[in-house]
Amino acid sequence: MAISDFATVKFENGALYFLDQTLLPNEERYVEMQTVEDVYDAIKRLVVRGAPAIGVGAAYGMWLAARNYAVENGLLGGAAVSAALSPEQVEAWLEAFRRDGAYLKSSRPTAVNLEWAVERMDGRMIAMKAMADEVAAGKFGVLQINADYILNELMQEADNIRVEDENSCYMMGMFGLTLLEPGMGLLTHCNAGALATAGYGTALAPIHMGQERGYDFHVYADETRPLLQGARLTAWELSRNGVDVTLICDNMASTVMKQGKIDAVLVGCDRMAANGDGANKIGTSGVAILAKEYGIPFYMFVPTSTIDMSIKSGNDIVIEERDPEEISEMWYARRMAPEGIRSFNPAFDVTDHKYITAIVTERGIALPPFDESLSALMDV
Amino acid sequence: MAISDFATVKFENGALYFLDQTLLPNEERYVEMQTVEDVYDAIKRLVVRGAPAIGVGAAYGMWLAARNYAVENGLLGGAAVSAALSPEQVEAWLEAFRRDGAYLKSSRPTAVNLEWAVERMDGRMIAMKAMADEVAAGKFGVLQINADYILNELMQEADNIRVEDENSCYMMGMFGLTLLEPGMGLLTHCNAGALATAGYGTALAPIHMGQERGYDFHVYADETRPLLQGARLTAWELSRNGVDVTLICDNMASTVMKQGKIDAVLVGCDRMAANGDGANKIGTSGVAILAKEYGIPFYMFVPTSTIDMSIKSGNDIVIEERDPEEISEMWYARRMAPEGIRSFNPAFDVTDHKYITAIVTERGIALPPFDESLSALMDV
Repeated sequence: MAISDFATVKFENGALYFLDQTLLPNEERYVEMQTVEDVYDAIKRLVVRGAPAIGVGAAYGMWLAARNYAVENGLLGGAAVSAALSPEQVEAWLEAFRRDGAYLKSSRPTAVNLEWAVERMDGRMIAMKAMADEVAAGKFGVLQINADYILNELMQEADNIRVEDENSCYMMGMFGLTLLEPGMGLLTHCNAGALATAGYGTALAPIHMGQERGYDFHVYADETRPLLQGARLTAWELSRNGVDVTLICDNMASTVMKQGKIDAVLVGCDRMAANGDGANKIGTSGVAILAKEYGIPFYMFVPTSTIDMSIKSGNDIVIEERDPEEISEMWYARRMAPEGIRSFNPAFDVTDHKYITAIVTERGIALPPFDESLSALMDV
Repeated sequence: MAISDFATVKFENGALYFLDQTLLPNEERYVEMQTVEDVYDAIKRLVVRGAPAIGVGAAYGMWLAARNYAVENGLLGGAAVSAALSPEQVEAWLEAFRRDGAYLKSSRPTAVNLEWAVERMDGRMIAMKAMADEVAAGKFGVLQINADYILNELMQEADNIRVEDENSCYMMGMFGLTLLEPGMGLLTHCNAGALATAGYGTALAPIHMGQERGYDFHVYADETRPLLQGARLTAWELSRNGVDVTLICDNMASTVMKQGKIDAVLVGCDRMAANGDGANKIGTSGVAILAKEYGIPFYMFVPTSTIDMSIKSGNDIVIEERDPEEISEMWYARRMAPEGIRSFNPAFDVTDHKYITAIVTERGIALPPFDESLSALMDV
């Protein structure tokens, strides 16, 4: 249940690979991650990006952290069966694992899935520690716990996170299609696609799945400055899947809407507050306001793992500020702004829930008032 | 009454130079225009851009056309006094002049000043033809008309256009300042500055003039994709004049407005219809809608030469579509979108008059309803 052509994150023969999204669309190269530091760096540099894909990548990254710890501390038996571990050994491993987790979580502050995935891996490791205690207390008779077993459990958790994300994308695609008609013109911002997830994508899931069903959508992709995820990634993955896609600059959205080319706006989300305010790629809030002004429905695609019920409204969401050079010189053959010019470079903005027509999750579609509908959905 | 540091268009020692804006901010180079074809190409390639500057450049370009015609047809006397011209000779010259004018007008379709300036030059040439007829009819006694006289008249008209533009900028700056307070945060889009005119600029005139008066504005400049006039030109000319300027991507306007950093939006205009609908750089209409949503005044700076009373509304304004490559590859060291991807690249959009708080002209400030106020202003 995903596009088979490429994989955003893949784990093969004991090795973790990310499709290097900084090189797209010029080169399709998979880079191997060997350490949690590699994964931290890959998330920071946007080699892997998109909240769900970051979550999946971070989960496997935590497995790498655990595996490397086991190797460095001689916990693996190689060809032989690994030795049994004492509760103290598992405790020390857990402590190292949590330090690595805290470090990995700091790679990007806004995407909630990163934190969430690391905490799920953490939960599994805590369960291992509890099990080691119970084994030591003789609860399981002759059963012993060793490093292979723990690594296998952690791999299972990372695989779960990946497969759940695939399913979640599929369900968002199905729900999303109920809101759309064949032949519609659709506008999207940034990349909330297969490249941002382990599956069909979030906002792009109904587009890819509609393509398989002959919906013939006409998609307008905002290029999404400063890092051009729309031009480099969305245009790449949609055209690769045969979707009719037209690239525009961010500031052309008002024009294509006014010309009647857009029937719906579909975007993703990096963190949603309990009231439906959604942080997403910088520029999303502007698109939402334009859609409202032109009377075009604005749909935000938000897996429940991205909904943070502990945050009341978007005002409490931390917005990452990135290097000014991303605006003034990165990507270019020549400087595009004077030397020393000051830039303001927020990576995300918050779209007020009042501009959102519906929130599509893998559990169903939430309609306003969102404080009620999201709360009901999260209680399922 | 202009920034003395640089000249957008300058005429020195019989030669016409444009500051090559395609090279800014990396290089400050003046390029000499020798023929009307050079000027056509410079306008097309945006070596000179901005409606008023195009008008001034085109006026001098028409002088070049006339001068070259005179040289090629042996009408100039060199060191000696040029020979008297017959009405037939002036008629032939006028016809060539009008062909050159039609050609030059086709370099860019949206900016009204281009057409307007060429027609003013044309009017002066027609007056020369009438005078030649009257001279031939003996109306002026012994007076004769020759090529030097005609070229001098045409130069006078081009100079008038330039000086009128300088004054117009100064007056828009003065009127604009009456709408602003010291210390305000201002947002601008594209470049409606000194680089777009022969003087202080249109929308940037009150900013430059406020700077001279200690207003300490905080200016946010939209980079303005695809050609980055905001990043390359506005950031350059404002910082060069000591103004506090921060560069943002176009899609960040919603964020800086929401954060309360913007007290007013100031933009230029390329062609305004009688009802106040204003065509300006692509993205302007989106900024106007955001400003309305956040309750921020939106001021359009429009010299009366840019107001086209023959056009009822913005629907009748022709919008230039430029090469898709400007979005997908121009400026970049690497392709930023997949090969063969389709792009939509309108150069301008129309801002509906309902989003405009006030229209600042060199004759005063027009307030809604604009169909009445503009009409009154144009009748002055």
